[in-house]
Amino acid sequence: MSENQSNFSGLKLEWDRSPGHPSLIRQLEHGLRTAVQRGQLPAGARLPASRVLADQLGCSRWVVVQAYEQLVAEGYFASVTGAGTYVQSLPAHDERRHRSSIENISWRYDFAAGIPDLSLFPRREWLAATRSALNTAPSAEFDYGTPAGLLALRTNLAAYLGRVRGAVAVADDLVITNGVVHAVAVMARAMRARGFDRIGVEHPGWIPLRTPFDGSGLTPIPIPVDSEGLDVTELIRSGARAVLISPAHQFPVGSVMSPRRRAALLEWADAVDGLIIEDDYDAEFRYDRNPLAAIQGLLPERVVLVGSVSKSLAPALRLGWMVLPESWKTPALDALRAVDPSVAVISQLAFAEYLSSGGFERHLRRMRKDYAGRRQQLVASMTEHFPNVTVQGISAGLHLMADLGPGSDIAFAAQAAAQQIRVYPVSRYCLNRDIPDQYMNRRAVVLGYGGIPQHRIAEGIKTLSNIASTI
Amino acid sequence: MSENQSNFSGLKLEWDRSPGHPSLIRQLEHGLRTAVQRGQLPAGARLPASRVLADQLGCSRWVVVQAYEQLVAEGYFASVTGAGTYVQSLPAHDERRHRSSIENISWRYDFAAGIPDLSLFPRREWLAATRSALNTAPSAEFDYGTPAGLLALRTNLAAYLGRVRGAVAVADDLVITNGVVHAVAVMARAMRARGFDRIGVEHPGWIPLRTPFDGSGLTPIPIPVDSEGLDVTELIRSGARAVLISPAHQFPVGSVMSPRRRAALLEWADAVDGLIIEDDYDAEFRYDRNPLAAIQGLLPERVVLVGSVSKSLAPALRLGWMVLPESWKTPALDALRAVDPSVAVISQLAFAEYLSSGGFERHLRRMRKDYAGRRQQLVASMTEHFPNVTVQGISAGLHLMADLGPGSDIAFAAQAAAQQIRVYPVSRYCLNRDIPDQYMNRRAVVLGYGGIPQHRIAEGIKTLSNIASTI
Repeated sequence: MSENQSNFSGLKLEWDRSPGHPSLIRQLEHGLRTAVQRGQLPAGARLPASRVLADQLGCSRWVVVQAYEQLVAEGYFASVTGAGTYVQSLPAHDERRHRSSIENISWRYDFAAGIPDLSLFPRREWLAATRSALNTAPSAEFDYGTPAGLLALRTNLAAYLGRVRGAVAVADDLVITNGVVHAVAVMARAMRARGFDRIGVEHPGWIPLRTPFDGSGLTPIPIPVDSEGLDVTELIRSGARAVLISPAHQFPVGSVMSPRRRAALLEWADAVDGLIIEDDYDAEFRYDRNPLAAIQGLLPERVVLVGSVSKSLAPALRLGWMVLPESWKTPALDALRAVDPSVAVISQLAFAEYLSSGGFERHLRRMRKDYAGRRQQLVASMTEHFPNVTVQGISAGLHLMADLGPGSDIAFAAQAAAQQIRVYPVSRYCLNRDIPDQYMNRRAVVLGYGGIPQHRIAEGIKTLSNIASTI
Repeated sequence: MSENQSNFSGLKLEWDRSPGHPSLIRQLEHGLRTAVQRGQLPAGARLPASRVLADQLGCSRWVVVQAYEQLVAEGYFASVTGAGTYVQSLPAHDERRHRSSIENISWRYDFAAGIPDLSLFPRREWLAATRSALNTAPSAEFDYGTPAGLLALRTNLAAYLGRVRGAVAVADDLVITNGVVHAVAVMARAMRARGFDRIGVEHPGWIPLRTPFDGSGLTPIPIPVDSEGLDVTELIRSGARAVLISPAHQFPVGSVMSPRRRAALLEWADAVDGLIIEDDYDAEFRYDRNPLAAIQGLLPERVVLVGSVSKSLAPALRLGWMVLPESWKTPALDALRAVDPSVAVISQLAFAEYLSSGGFERHLRRMRKDYAGRRQQLVASMTEHFPNVTVQGISAGLHLMADLGPGSDIAFAAQAAAQQIRVYPVSRYCLNRDIPDQYMNRRAVVLGYGGIPQHRIAEGIKTLSNIASTI
């Protein structure tokens, strides 16, 4: 056995003398602790006397005594007066190895819906906004933020939502969230506390927005949607007093709620003393005309308007908002506090800066132009290669729905997948895979264009049509 | 009435012709919509014919027609064939004004516990880490992150926690959270789903960590703590199968869990098939010796180790972690997804960079030295000015507890507050203000030193002692 090395019970201990190495005591503690955790020092084993181990390791006895004491205090060793130091009885652990959980399929064309072009995230501008935030924020801002969020951000957002979305809101009505799922999770908790037990949801609809209801005590009730948006008659029939809708651009059908449905929805909400959660997920992007204003502006007392930067900037930022009716502020803030005290303040500071500098709206204008071109290309290519296609939905957002005729949407998507083309069958967006009549036995698929640049769309759709023609 | 201005029903509409102004159509829509929202255009009012309003405003008729159509689609107006356009019936809204909710007390000395010195947040280093993240991350990272968190960060953290906290963990065992409250909220949901109905909590303890249990279906059961940490006999007696503890440095008492209590705790956990949530909130800061390793390393199958950067960097970052036993990974990830799909990825990238560059540990070394000096000063000042004081707890963290003798802790804190000195009475940390025997009628207060630089501590305590002597 070489100097400065010990080998008792088959255990090898060595010193690390590299620059910045931890103290000898810490190294010895770590070596002994790990040995117990791995079962290399079995329960009941007697440790060498401190003088003996110190001699073997070439360190002072004090180092060994300190390390033993530490491990006695931590519960790894026990010290028995007059009889030395023993290893406590502990379950042994395998040295668990890292198991990669990365999905390894690589797509030639992924028509993912609901994701913006991440390669166009304004890295430089976001960094500049972050720099400005970090350089100028008073230190007090680095504390837990207020649950409602940064006042400067809420003020800027209230003005933006009033101007761009026709919302009725002042800073005090806003709560900053980590995004739309977070907002819905908070509202689910608040609604449950107020005795709500179910909520109407769009069918088909955006399934990740259903996850907050799992185990929440609120049952989601699927309500059909068509080219006029949510079927309000069915909502009334359901007996639910709350609904989660995307009236400006229904996902995935792509319809806008019609004026008569809007009127019926507002009437329903007043009649049942109800609550509307308005998911305004991609309203920044409409290409043929101005987007319809949010219904929140029509009935702010009964509508919670939720939105985020996940489509306009990037999901990675985890920044969103809720505009709350007066009567829901306290329950929503109570629910928020129970999940997490606040949203990352430095991100809020950066977004407030990006909004007030006008950078955010400049970015939106650039993106709107880009996505409009992609959509036009996608519609043209679909029409060219699938003569019988029906493209559904308004010219807006980051996706369209295409009905390719009779057949199985899932089989079609599977055949595309075999050629590394990813399309999204409509049944993916149906709760419990219960398909509405109009999509039964239809090859109806959702095609997103946020992830595919314009110049690749034609080729992607041509390739897809080759597959289709072989079915 | 001047040109380019209209005044019907007392409503004034004007064009904004400043650079970058919105289109005339959007301006008109916005003006009309706001007028309805504010009740300035009452329900049933007939709008001027489009040609008339266009003449008044000096714009083309097309602008007015488009704006009317937009507001019909949105539900603000109704168009009756042959009879013109009317305002729909809507509730009127006050123009709600911003009500400031900022607490306006200014403290001369705020001995806040559990907050680091925010003026020492490493702004420059954090910006550099963010820059590096934004410059080098592949675009795909700007998507929703995986619920478990960024692999690079989990890998770096697992190594750090193994080295510094004696944890048994690989990247796969870690989940990144928004902080410790978020982690506890996620675990509460997961535990409820598994049939747990109560959880032992430290009494006294850190009250904000109780909020996740509100309405969760889990009842928190207060378990007494003393100088050996949590009373495990009382935990056994409670019948709870889960416990939330801070064994490395109990808040607020400041004790470390003794080896015999640790052994009893582990035995209990195995016997009841239980779960221990280990709140490792400030273990980076111990000044007299190495901190005790986390108990997670002793029994990783039954311990969830939770921690965050809220004490080591700043709460504003909202970054934390959980180390999960194998059997709790799926329930915890399900619960996480239901609350929010992921933690801000850009922050995760920056923290991964800050960890791997060694910046984080350098920062910790600087802070440890600084806080050690403050604590020493605080203990010395207390001993000088309050000769009968008992300072409780180990030399660690960002606070101490001082027992100043018989009396009311709340009255003492109130008298200090009248002099703009903020101290924290122990009853603040007791669930339902139910004071344990050893603190009954004691002027026991928590004093934090994260927010007060060393050179101001002596003066603050002297001022406090003047108040005390006048009581």
